Amino acid sequence: MREVFQQELREVQDRLVEISTLVAVSIENATRAFNESDVSLAEAVIADDDRIDEAALALDELAINILARQQPVARDLRIVVSALRVSASLERMGDMSEHIAQLARYRFPDKVVPKSLRATFAELGTLDVAIARKLVELLTSGDVRIAEQIRNDDDRIDALHLSVFDKVLGETWKGGAVDTVDATLASRYHERFADHAVSIAKKMQYLATGDWVAPEL
Amino acid sequence: MREVFQQELREVQDRLVEISTLVAVSIENATRAFNESDVSLAEAVIADDDRIDEAALALDELAINILARQQPVARDLRIVVSALRVSASLERMGDMSEHIAQLARYRFPDKVVPKSLRATFAELGTLDVAIARKLVELLTSGDVRIAEQIRNDDDRIDALHLSVFDKVLGETWKGGAVDTVDATLASRYHERFADHAVSIAKKMQYLATGDWVAPEL
Repeated sequence: MREVFQQELREVQDRLVEISTLVAVSIENATRAFNESDVSLAEAVIADDDRIDEAALALDELAINILARQQPVARDLRIVVSALRVSASLERMGDMSEHIAQLARYRFPDKVVPKSLRATFAELGTLDVAIARKLVELLTSGDVRIAEQIRNDDDRIDALHLSVFDKVLGETWKGGAVDTVDATLASRYHERFADHAVSIAKKMQYLATGDWVAPEL
Repeated sequence: MREVFQQELREVQDRLVEISTLVAVSIENATRAFNESDVSLAEAVIADDDRIDEAALALDELAINILARQQPVARDLRIVVSALRVSASLERMGDMSEHIAQLARYRFPDKVVPKSLRATFAELGTLDVAIARKLVELLTSGDVRIAEQIRNDDDRIDALHLSVFDKVLGETWKGGAVDTVDATLASRYHERFADHAVSIAKKMQYLATGDWVAPEL
């Protein structure tokens, strides 16, 4: 029974790694579509989000099934419950990536943001891609030092997010309302993407220390 | 054992009703603070969000504890797992309400949105408050007809959300960048607030029909 359970936990972990890999590909493509106004790539990101949703759904069914059959307690129980939460966060990360791609598609053939903000959004994109890749690594290896790195990357994203508002609300801002709306939303999506990654990273850290539930909510 | 379990399920339900009541009070106050530029009310909403977070956290600990001790299966298991998800959605609804209050505080003593959008935001606020109250009713009574009403209210909110973008991106928009940013964010927060309510409503509907997990993700 114990061996079956361990095998099932590995299956849960493998699936989380799979979903996080889909999310990493999604944000990479969304960022490129956004920076380069690549409408067909944007449409691919939007279409592929269904795969992430389905994979998250399948994982949840598996986790609930394990709870029902294996009746885990203590740390084992917390691992399975945390898998449900990680899956929900990954699914939302996919949504944020899809929203970024949608902005690129709506504005096509125009660029989504004016020149003065392109470097900022390029960096936001690069950081979100890096965070997504680190998340794959973290879920694969369980190495909680990666969780710390993700939290540091998120601090930089928060600073960039604030700088977008400074720019948009500053006196030198020449953008029209479309630019202002797009910059506001795109920045928020990048920030939320990273927030969900941090929430997963915290869960992994506290799962490693045995006290994972407290800081999550 | 069975009786203890039923009693614990009632405790879970009572706590969900409690948290949803806090959320309803929060969105009522946030909406009023937003419409009337009432900075002290905005600050109260922001301070009170901690209570919602703590109540959600306590409920999650209780639900995990029930899973560990009672080892529920089948529908009982799904009820407890769904409580974890409802609690996460309520916690996010509190966050959206807090964000709306923060916008009111940032812009004080100015109004958050220009005259041309005030009626729209008043209606968004009224609808979100109505949805929050219906959610309390739904969690109290389990009457799934209320879930249907929530979904209808959400359709109207989505239409209003789109109309904000039409206005802000239209030729008659006279607002500056601050107005554009605020309208974009406030509208998004209202829309997300309602989305979380719909996600809870769907869970309750499918829990009633026995197939609740599928549509949630």
